[in-house]
Amino acid sequence: MKPVAKSDFPVTDVRRFLEPGPIVLVSSAWQGETNIMTMGWHMVMGFEPSLVGCYIWSEHHSQALIRKSKACVINVPTVDLADIVVDIGNCSGRDVDKFERFGLTPQPGTMVSAPLIAECWASFECRLADASLIKKYNLFVFEVVKGHAAKAKRAPRTLHYRGDGEFMIAGETTRRWRRRFRPDML
Amino acid sequence: MKPVAKSDFPVTDVRRFLEPGPIVLVSSAWQGETNIMTMGWHMVMGFEPSLVGCYIWSEHHSQALIRKSKACVINVPTVDLADIVVDIGNCSGRDVDKFERFGLTPQPGTMVSAPLIAECWASFECRLADASLIKKYNLFVFEVVKGHAAKAKRAPRTLHYRGDGEFMIAGETTRRWRRRFRPDML
Repeated sequence: MKPVAKSDFPVTDVRRFLEPGPIVLVSSAWQGETNIMTMGWHMVMGFEPSLVGCYIWSEHHSQALIRKSKACVINVPTVDLADIVVDIGNCSGRDVDKFERFGLTPQPGTMVSAPLIAECWASFECRLADASLIKKYNLFVFEVVKGHAAKAKRAPRTLHYRGDGEFMIAGETTRRWRRRFRPDML
Repeated sequence: MKPVAKSDFPVTDVRRFLEPGPIVLVSSAWQGETNIMTMGWHMVMGFEPSLVGCYIWSEHHSQALIRKSKACVINVPTVDLADIVVDIGNCSGRDVDKFERFGLTPQPGTMVSAPLIAECWASFECRLADASLIKKYNLFVFEVVKGHAAKAKRAPRTLHYRGDGEFMIAGETTRRWRRRFRPDML
């Protein structure tokens, strides 16, 4: 498990990592405390601004940190981090410093106070854009304000949760059907 | 391309198909007209009631049909339908009867007027539960009121869109990490 070398990634292209539906690790910080949660319920909601909707349950310790700091980082882990992805979901930031416990490296963000997770394939710095749906739906609408992604151009072997302890691991990525797209649909 | 034999599937378990983030085909009907759209932006938002959030752009012909009928069916296609998934996204229901054009079989739903697509691996009948976020976010909150899934118990080879004409095809499904989960997390 080692840090992934990343470079800047355009915020308008966040769909390339999030639309396929991977499990993500959400990192947050507030008044010196950091936390990480595992999240499977998220969706792209726009390109410009780059919006992402995330379901963050009120019982999660992260919810308060994110509400107070109005920010988070959405990190995309790959299959080599599967043990940690599960273990992070098994414990609470109320009891544990998750960066320390799991040997993950916090990297300072450039636009938000929440730290990036260096070992993840991609990291997206987010600001809370709309808090009005939190109470009713636990739905956070974030604007991605800065993107970072692995310099390696191959597609990441992401984890996709199917419930009941079962994961689908990302298979082949292909442009086999690309020529069928109407040019303005790309 | 042939119809998939399906049986009833519990609405509280819809995450098993939608949380991994597949491209879906949304079918709708209003006053004798039917339509199908390809959709990649969706998320699970709750178990009971079984809620799914969907981004359906106002420019899509389907949006009006779904707003008026307050219903749709979310169908999960597999890789053998990839050509059709792309072609459906390339044309508009304003010009084309998509069931007819693409040789898909509409099956009557039991709870909603929108038809199921028989050739898909799973189909979820949905009622519009909250229309208040459509105007601002094109966000439809649906309640899944009836589920249908392939009798075959293997995991489907779903398509996951990465933008720019590129798909990830679902790889291995595994319970390798299941024993790591705290029992109450399953």
